[in-house]
Amino acid sequence: MQPLPGFRDFLPQDWARQNYIFEKWWEVARRYGFLQWEGPVLEPTEIYTKKSGPEIVGQLFNFTDKGEREVALRPELTPSLARVVAAHDREFKKPLKWFSIPHCFRYEKQQRGRLREHYQFNADIIGEASLDADVELIALCIDLLRAFGFSSKDVVVRVSDREFWIDFLRAQNLPEEKWQETLQIIDKSEREPREKTGAKLGPLAESVFKILDGKGSSEKLDRVLDGLSARGLADFAQIDLGIVRGLAYYTGVVFEAFDRAGKLRALAGGGRYDNLIHHLSDGAANHPAIGFAMGDVVLAELIDESPAAKAHLDKAVAAQRALDVYIVIAKEERRADALAQIQRLRDGGYRVDYPLAPAKVGKQFQIAEQLGARLAILFGDEWPQVAIKNLATGNQELVACDALLTRLESMARETGRPG
Amino acid sequence: MQPLPGFRDFLPQDWARQNYIFEKWWEVARRYGFLQWEGPVLEPTEIYTKKSGPEIVGQLFNFTDKGEREVALRPELTPSLARVVAAHDREFKKPLKWFSIPHCFRYEKQQRGRLREHYQFNADIIGEASLDADVELIALCIDLLRAFGFSSKDVVVRVSDREFWIDFLRAQNLPEEKWQETLQIIDKSEREPREKTGAKLGPLAESVFKILDGKGSSEKLDRVLDGLSARGLADFAQIDLGIVRGLAYYTGVVFEAFDRAGKLRALAGGGRYDNLIHHLSDGAANHPAIGFAMGDVVLAELIDESPAAKAHLDKAVAAQRALDVYIVIAKEERRADALAQIQRLRDGGYRVDYPLAPAKVGKQFQIAEQLGARLAILFGDEWPQVAIKNLATGNQELVACDALLTRLESMARETGRPG
Repeated sequence: MQPLPGFRDFLPQDWARQNYIFEKWWEVARRYGFLQWEGPVLEPTEIYTKKSGPEIVGQLFNFTDKGEREVALRPELTPSLARVVAAHDREFKKPLKWFSIPHCFRYEKQQRGRLREHYQFNADIIGEASLDADVELIALCIDLLRAFGFSSKDVVVRVSDREFWIDFLRAQNLPEEKWQETLQIIDKSEREPREKTGAKLGPLAESVFKILDGKGSSEKLDRVLDGLSARGLADFAQIDLGIVRGLAYYTGVVFEAFDRAGKLRALAGGGRYDNLIHHLSDGAANHPAIGFAMGDVVLAELIDESPAAKAHLDKAVAAQRALDVYIVIAKEERRADALAQIQRLRDGGYRVDYPLAPAKVGKQFQIAEQLGARLAILFGDEWPQVAIKNLATGNQELVACDALLTRLESMARETGRPG
Repeated sequence: MQPLPGFRDFLPQDWARQNYIFEKWWEVARRYGFLQWEGPVLEPTEIYTKKSGPEIVGQLFNFTDKGEREVALRPELTPSLARVVAAHDREFKKPLKWFSIPHCFRYEKQQRGRLREHYQFNADIIGEASLDADVELIALCIDLLRAFGFSSKDVVVRVSDREFWIDFLRAQNLPEEKWQETLQIIDKSEREPREKTGAKLGPLAESVFKILDGKGSSEKLDRVLDGLSARGLADFAQIDLGIVRGLAYYTGVVFEAFDRAGKLRALAGGGRYDNLIHHLSDGAANHPAIGFAMGDVVLAELIDESPAAKAHLDKAVAAQRALDVYIVIAKEERRADALAQIQRLRDGGYRVDYPLAPAKVGKQFQIAEQLGARLAILFGDEWPQVAIKNLATGNQELVACDALLTRLESMARETGRPG
């Protein structure tokens, strides 16, 4: 009776929330000129190990298919993106601004904000090295959050620069093979005691802590903030060199979005990966790129905790589920007449429901209210007139059946909605 | 460089088509008062063998997960539906009208109209035994096809009754254990030579062929057609006892939608399954039900072959992809000013793009046209005025930058769209 652990059943009230999230994502991405694409849910396992190393397999839903192929449910979209961009490299002028809303899977322990599947918004700008691309993408991340009703008091995007840290490690004469490990230690430092991080960092500890405590910046990051300021979005961003992101392939600006209260996991994260497409495509394509992802699970948690955002969602969900008209069939001999009108109303774009089997009039009105109908239209003794009842106000009027659609249209003009 | 066999990469132009199909499905289902739900992509394998027998495993993407669970990528949605309905049986008053647009997977040989993954529209009415439910669902199937621009000259829904055949087999004194096999022979008869079917049917052959040739009907099927007539949809339907559908669990009305020319596989198919929820839920719930599915692959093929339907699709895809405004930055010192206006326009709901790096003005106009922008707005020497250029007509006007949004809004009122 239960789905697999970490998987979700979406009842209609749950899926209406998902649709709200997907629609906001879609709408804002389109305002930014991004185009939607999609990759396969199942891919060869090797495209993920090529990006993240063999350890990733432990976190995959992977298996051998009936054709002896090693395959995996996608944990992320970037390797598919690199493949698609390389395969169609000549068809598309760069830069590409592409987004997607993939369903992704990871075999890992369930915990708050983390399931074994989730939907995520992905956006990437491919083929543009200019810092304006970084700003455009961070602005998109901010505007996605704004679209859900969050203000700069609710959320913040912390922006950092991987290059700053590489320059630092180089200046400290740290051998290159130790960079990745050290970056991961710095990445984790926020979530563990200073002594522990310090012990791991050894002689580097003092200078690293100085940077982390110093609210430092760089010329590049100042320019990112200037770009956001020009758009009026600076309040949503904060330079924070403590953001490093664990993954090896980032080459420049990196960023993560959080709730200001710091109660939840990251809402979104991403950064510049100028060498990754070349690596993943075995050199078939070579483009600078920057991208980020925003998951549905933590986002939905934050919406539920924020009264303004929750009110937006509730209103949109109610509108999505609302019925325009419930047809009450008071006399069964009117059923065929009612069906003809139901068809006309639906053809006219109205959302219409009616009793599939004979039922008492009182019960039919009850169902009309349960379904959130705005109007009930009664087919009964008044035929060939029908009674239109506004279920909110109780107002009722008789109209000739043939004039029904016209009358609903004039009501819509008067009030902005039928009834 | 290729996706796995039978899987699709959707470039932006491909995904816009998918979005068009999904939106039509959603819109028509909502007009009919159906609510959208979703189940998991991965489920325990046994829910599929319980419904379809152990042979189904040969057609599944199934595997053992890292927790030693036997799991499968869903080949269809009905077993998940039965589980969800049973798990939440008391929460929802019946009848339920639910739809879903699941992504489904089958490990089978690729052929025309059949991949290893596809999206399908599913609609089910649960908890209503009345024949009105059958008519409502067939009408929905027809209206989904009408929404894509198909007329009754393009498509037909062939309606039959499993009960008619069961009554027939019983009257012929055929032992019950042979019913399923015989129904499958009848189901296949249309696609193989008469002699072959006749040999398989043996003594039943003559009376079966008489029924198949006789354009017969039943009182129940006549009532279905009356219900469709009341809605003005009878032209789209045809009683056809040759439709049997191979699956064992159908108990009443069954139907399949086809292109009239008969060139393609079925567009949709379904029927009444009054005992299945009881069976699949081990008796936890017991509801009469009827449902159908429509896949995206054959539907898209038919759209491409039908000029009217293709024109609808192309128009919707162009609108989905169109940009409202491309910002031309003629002087780099105006970039920050342009960004402020870009943000205002996007906040106002306009789809806006701009050059992420400095480029020649002529090149920027070229890109504006490639991206399908309706307007170009030029930030240059005229500052603090900007030039609005309608890319279709070539008309150009200067407007004070502060008045830009107001001017676009008044243009929209004049012409129904910005510009």
